[in-house]
Amino acid sequence: MPPFEVPEGDPFGPNNLPYGVFSTSESSDRRVGVRLGDHVLDAGAAALALGSPYASLLARPTLNPLLAAGRTAWSDVRRALTAWVTVPAHRETLAPLLHPLAEVTLHLPFEVADYVDFYASENHARNAGRIFRPDAAEPLTPNWKHLPIGYHGRAGTVVVSGTDVVRPSGQRKAPSDAAPVFGPSVRLDIEAEVGFVVGTPSPQGSPVALADFRDHVFGLCLLNDWSARDIQAWEYVPLGPFLGKSFATSVSAWITPLDALEEARVAPPRRTHPLLPYLDDAMEEPAGYDLRISIAINGQTVSEPPFSTMYWTAAQQLAHLTVNGASLRTGDLYGSGTVSGAEPGQRGSLLELTWNGRDPLELPDGKRTYLEDGDVVTMSAWAPGPDGSRVGLGEVSGRVVAG
Amino acid sequence: MPPFEVPEGDPFGPNNLPYGVFSTSESSDRRVGVRLGDHVLDAGAAALALGSPYASLLARPTLNPLLAAGRTAWSDVRRALTAWVTVPAHRETLAPLLHPLAEVTLHLPFEVADYVDFYASENHARNAGRIFRPDAAEPLTPNWKHLPIGYHGRAGTVVVSGTDVVRPSGQRKAPSDAAPVFGPSVRLDIEAEVGFVVGTPSPQGSPVALADFRDHVFGLCLLNDWSARDIQAWEYVPLGPFLGKSFATSVSAWITPLDALEEARVAPPRRTHPLLPYLDDAMEEPAGYDLRISIAINGQTVSEPPFSTMYWTAAQQLAHLTVNGASLRTGDLYGSGTVSGAEPGQRGSLLELTWNGRDPLELPDGKRTYLEDGDVVTMSAWAPGPDGSRVGLGEVSGRVVAG
Repeated sequence: MPPFEVPEGDPFGPNNLPYGVFSTSESSDRRVGVRLGDHVLDAGAAALALGSPYASLLARPTLNPLLAAGRTAWSDVRRALTAWVTVPAHRETLAPLLHPLAEVTLHLPFEVADYVDFYASENHARNAGRIFRPDAAEPLTPNWKHLPIGYHGRAGTVVVSGTDVVRPSGQRKAPSDAAPVFGPSVRLDIEAEVGFVVGTPSPQGSPVALADFRDHVFGLCLLNDWSARDIQAWEYVPLGPFLGKSFATSVSAWITPLDALEEARVAPPRRTHPLLPYLDDAMEEPAGYDLRISIAINGQTVSEPPFSTMYWTAAQQLAHLTVNGASLRTGDLYGSGTVSGAEPGQRGSLLELTWNGRDPLELPDGKRTYLEDGDVVTMSAWAPGPDGSRVGLGEVSGRVVAG
Repeated sequence: MPPFEVPEGDPFGPNNLPYGVFSTSESSDRRVGVRLGDHVLDAGAAALALGSPYASLLARPTLNPLLAAGRTAWSDVRRALTAWVTVPAHRETLAPLLHPLAEVTLHLPFEVADYVDFYASENHARNAGRIFRPDAAEPLTPNWKHLPIGYHGRAGTVVVSGTDVVRPSGQRKAPSDAAPVFGPSVRLDIEAEVGFVVGTPSPQGSPVALADFRDHVFGLCLLNDWSARDIQAWEYVPLGPFLGKSFATSVSAWITPLDALEEARVAPPRRTHPLLPYLDDAMEEPAGYDLRISIAINGQTVSEPPFSTMYWTAAQQLAHLTVNGASLRTGDLYGSGTVSGAEPGQRGSLLELTWNGRDPLELPDGKRTYLEDGDVVTMSAWAPGPDGSRVGLGEVSGRVVAG
């Protein structure tokens, strides 16, 4: 009998082992935890109890020391953890270090260095182009197929799943308004994304090649890039989104290591334009991921965006982000951009799902164009694992509260 | 006789006292220093030698603890430092703690949390509009007079004055090119800016009012927002500048406390449009600063931008930055945007000084449209102090090197 029993088919079985940071009602000390089913293993305490050398990486209040340790250490620690949770002899030692998930508090698992957000779904970019520039012949901007468009967001307002999101106030101006007005956003939206977490830093002046993606990126999480469309529309020309996005970005409490997602790797969609060499992944290993995302508002599923449809991969995004010599730091986070599939039921934002309010969603408690105070948005996802199993991603959830 | 003699008229006299972080050839330990003329006082060692309670803020490797201590502590520490450097009895104690500026190494003085860049000079925005949209009737975008336009930059690539800047590579595409090409930027530019350093944090969901600017902002520095115009032009629609800016941002090694700039406060230019209440500074104390900036390339002055001409003040920028509930962290840095005066000799970028290359500058070693490898760009500034004195800002300098 293994030390910990996880029900057959549980997406958080011993082949998953995502990392988070938690505290308990007995101790407010933050520590690294590893999720197993509906329990959390105190990974640092386990390392200490078993005399593991990895205690120096795991008995810490954030994931940053583990992130900074690099690819070889990540694999070694994962191998050790796999042994701990599967070898029956450890049962007595480790059982007291297992906490029910419902009884712990989960924290932001790492200190975010820089946060960048991309725009990598062709479906999303086409939908946004059609909505905002209905008269344009081509919904994509001329650069879209040549580079993964991105911009920097606010690292200081990245919050962990479960944190309430205060409805932002700001300026907005409808074309019919003579002057801008100020008030709470009336078009508060979501964006379902996948966030990639950088572990290994890189020096200023040294681009990171496509092939080195897995040496630098530790893992991924779900990310909700909350967006105030009315604030964004008035402010974003010419320097891009600012206050329409900077009030909050939610991430899941669990970081899934790339090592847990080997079976989920897929080739990205066929490229329609030739790529410059630093972005050309035709000869690289597949760097897309088959993640099946689900978005629910107040418990009702409203969309199921497939991450496998993303035109630009996380490896291309990292290569682009650094090609000008920009350095990477441990804790850098970058979002994929809104994930939207080709079908209407696969769109990753209310902007697209309601076509900017024209086609409201029907929820049990009424119609929705954009979010109302009290709405709880929850994104979850899973990926194919070995032998038909599923690898679960931690959910990212947040409730909208009035400002 | 005071403990330290600073020549009459030196802009780094005892009414200035900017803060930096330095190390010496004897000890690589980083410590807080205060500049006095062409010397640096080891402020933490001084506090320890004099039994000051401020040793806990000054005997540290970065300014962050001092920044986090808040407005009252900033004033108290400044008062103490002023006494130390002016009371003759301290001479014997402090003389050994004074290092010649030429013999120390200066470091990035604080850990940058988030970096935001604004666009607050009307002259600069009009020049940029005329250059990039020559056919438009109005060079300013419709939002420009209603809000201080800004965007997030890359905090991880903020470097201290003296750091070489590697010419970035990236994609560019001239209108006549069929497809983008890749290579080193051929339009590498500068932007002369003033950077504001946040000390006191603010919680998520709580805007910072105009009147609270000085409770949150500790001081300012000079900032060079290096810009690759060709990379920027191809990438920036629709989400703003990214790789055209993210390769490096240089800041001066010295942070001048706002308390040293009381005599330099001036009213901003007359507002031509009514402002929403959160930005309306008509009844506030003047929040502009009369800083006289000078830009030199390879030692030759090419421009003298006056900071007093900025349309949006740093107080308005902070109020705008937080009005959506975005939190502040100790170490947040925000740039004013390129400082350009009304006259051709007051423009803060080569884009404007050479009108995008049309009117090259004449330098002793030849013409310049944009920067060449080996060029050294140095920005310096001073502000009026008490009794006709000058308060110097630390220079920000950087040399362009080939990638």
